[in-house]
Amino acid sequence: MEKTDFHKIFENIKKHPPFVHCMTNYVTINDVANIILAAGGSPVMAEEKEEVEEITAGCDCLMLNIGTLQKRKREAMILAGKKANEMGHPVIFDPVGAGSSRFRTETASRIMDEVKLSVIRGNASEIKVLCHEKIRGKGVDADQKDAVTEGTMEDMISMGRELSEKTGAVVLITGAVDLAVCREQAAAIHNGDPAMARITGSGCMLDGVLGVFAGANPEYLFDAVTAASAAMGICGENAAVLSRGTGSFRMHLMDEMSKINAQQVERGMNIESKK
Amino acid sequence: MEKTDFHKIFENIKKHPPFVHCMTNYVTINDVANIILAAGGSPVMAEEKEEVEEITAGCDCLMLNIGTLQKRKREAMILAGKKANEMGHPVIFDPVGAGSSRFRTETASRIMDEVKLSVIRGNASEIKVLCHEKIRGKGVDADQKDAVTEGTMEDMISMGRELSEKTGAVVLITGAVDLAVCREQAAAIHNGDPAMARITGSGCMLDGVLGVFAGANPEYLFDAVTAASAAMGICGENAAVLSRGTGSFRMHLMDEMSKINAQQVERGMNIESKK
Amino acid sequence: MEKTDFHKIFENIKKHPPFVHCMTNYVTINDVANIILAAGGSPVMAEEKEEVEEITAGCDCLMLNIGTLQKRKREAMILAGKKANEMGHPVIFDPVGAGSSRFRTETASRIMDEVKLSVIRGNASEIKVLCHEKIRGKGVDADQKDAVTEGTMEDMISMGRELSEKTGAVVLITGAVDLAVCREQAAAIHNGDPAMARITGSGCMLDGVLGVFAGANPEYLFDAVTAASAAMGICGENAAVLSRGTGSFRMHLMDEMSKINAQQVERGMNIESKK
Repeated sequence: MEKTDFHKIFENIKKHPPFVHCMTNYVTINDVANIILAAGGSPVMAEEKEEVEEITAGCDCLMLNIGTLQKRKREAMILAGKKANEMGHPVIFDPVGAGSSRFRTETASRIMDEVKLSVIRGNASEIKVLCHEKIRGKGVDADQKDAVTEGTMEDMISMGRELSEKTGAVVLITGAVDLAVCREQAAAIHNGDPAMARITGSGCMLDGVLGVFAGANPEYLFDAVTAASAAMGICGENAAVLSRGTGSFRMHLMDEMSKINAQQVERGMNIESKK
Repeated sequence: MEKTDFHKIFENIKKHPPFVHCMTNYVTINDVANIILAAGGSPVMAEEKEEVEEITAGCDCLMLNIGTLQKRKREAMILAGKKANEMGHPVIFDPVGAGSSRFRTETASRIMDEVKLSVIRGNASEIKVLCHEKIRGKGVDADQKDAVTEGTMEDMISMGRELSEKTGAVVLITGAVDLAVCREQAAAIHNGDPAMARITGSGCMLDGVLGVFAGANPEYLFDAVTAASAAMGICGENAAVLSRGTGSFRMHLMDEMSKINAQQVERGMNIESKK
Repeated sequence: MEKTDFHKIFENIKKHPPFVHCMTNYVTINDVANIILAAGGSPVMAEEKEEVEEITAGCDCLMLNIGTLQKRKREAMILAGKKANEMGHPVIFDPVGAGSSRFRTETASRIMDEVKLSVIRGNASEIKVLCHEKIRGKGVDADQKDAVTEGTMEDMISMGRELSEKTGAVVLITGAVDLAVCREQAAAIHNGDPAMARITGSGCMLDGVLGVFAGANPEYLFDAVTAASAAMGICGENAAVLSRGTGSFRMHLMDEMSKINAQQVERGMNIESKK
């Protein structure tokens, strides 16, 4: 994977604003579309089997998020994923709720088996479930106690690295700290604010931002993921200062993303290289 | 039904923040998720037949709202409802649009027949339709002229009580005044603001708040319902003062819910005991 | 088509607030419902085949938007469209994404064939696709370079007029400038702000506003369309002044629509009559 700096990452978004085909849940679909626009891309939402391959072919990146999943949509996701692979588009995958039902876990497993993924983003519990599915045999349950903390960080990196090695994807484990992990690199992104956990969709919105950053920077996936995570975290920090509750926080978060640039990210980021 | 005070109601939410499994319409699903978080709970959205029973089993409360209903989801709602009954979780039911189509009316009727409900929330017209379905024989149409006013209040309480007796649920009839009714008690909650009727989802959001309050207080359902209605109304009153249109009203409503506590509710509530 | 003035258009909305049955995409369905309320109407969302005819029969106007379209919903749209025709209700049609997949293009084509439309709203690329489908033989692709500019305006009006003559609908081609075209009249509406393109749903929200304006003014469709476009544009201009990013822009846009009146539209509108 090539390396670059954040200025280049942002420059590429500006030069070729990516179209991101999103197949995502209905809870946060509006937030995802809006944050993709705020981050400089264009969202395209389509989920019917009849059209997803054509739609994906006309975009630059595919984002799959299995919240509020339906059976019919799952088939469409696989079709779109295969087409994106064929076209060489990055595929972002969010295994929402993996471990909380067999249907979700099996879906996550099937998508990992049938689609080559570029970025996998989940919380510690979801990533653990994926790891077990892909590597250690089935059957682990989601555990809300799983979290990225100073104490668990080394274990989380090992887990992320295993998943990255098996899938070829950059793995982003999100929580109070975000961990970006690939075969050769790892980084802890210490940006963000607890308010992000008090609105729905912080994670789904990050999926959208990842779609924009990766879609415009397919050759620099690790840096694109790190930059997206830091950008989102910094927007959360700024929004927290301005807001007086969760409703205004959500609005300010969007405002911040619509104004952020490479300079602000470089100034505000708190990224620690890991092994 | 046990009695308690509002401090205890709020304390229980804080002590055991409930997971609320929502099967709700796509118009306001984001608002519902956000207000559940604002009120101190965690929303879980899942609607595919394959997973709803497992998801419900892992939560503390189930909320069923039949807006933008689809046939497949209706079957999933029944499955989830039965599982929630089996687990002893409170079930909140919102018969959105009952009376406006045979499909909605029949769905509401079937849910009442097959699922034991803990709280039924609807406007006067919807509750009237439910009453006829359950008690007086089919066939009444929704009537937008139905409303809770000083003049109709006694009739509405009788209607709510009949429905409560047949179903075992606490019935909350919402409008300019909200009426909470069960077999032994009734209360008129005079909080709220007309601005709440000028945004979509005030009712659906209240369903979510009811999920949080009832989910954490299954043994005090009547008080939980009254507290939720008062809390929502007070948030509406505060938001109305701060807003300059319906967009900012919606944001402030969410802000207010994310900050409200038992003291504010006790200070601001305007609840009249009824027979 | 009768002519009137904007005061009459707004007066009719106030006198008989229309119920608008919306069958629309899940990305912006909440924004659409909220802006319909802000504009003085009542949104009704229903999409299951079993109920759409009854629901449409109880409303004043039908709005069809084919974003995030599913096969089952497409059939329901045709049923609802035919019922609306039977009742004499205006039907607003938004061919979102026509040209970007065969499924969307064929759906748009089928709706035009089977439902008598009152208003068709799309961007230049979508309207061009519809024109080819209806008039010049199939096969044109969406072209993001299509746009209403001073240079293309005459061609766009010809295109809109052809589509209007074939379908009987008022055609509204939206972009930096909006063009309203029917058989006898045409107008360029120069209101609006570039910020509207940086949020999702500006177009879908305009569909909802068109539903309110046309639903209350079925005999003055051209003026209703022009007024709706001008009102939306003016709200966008005012919101742009007040906002500090795309999140607050969206909120202010809703606030503005909830307060706008005929006087403000007449003062702020920038409408140029065309041949």
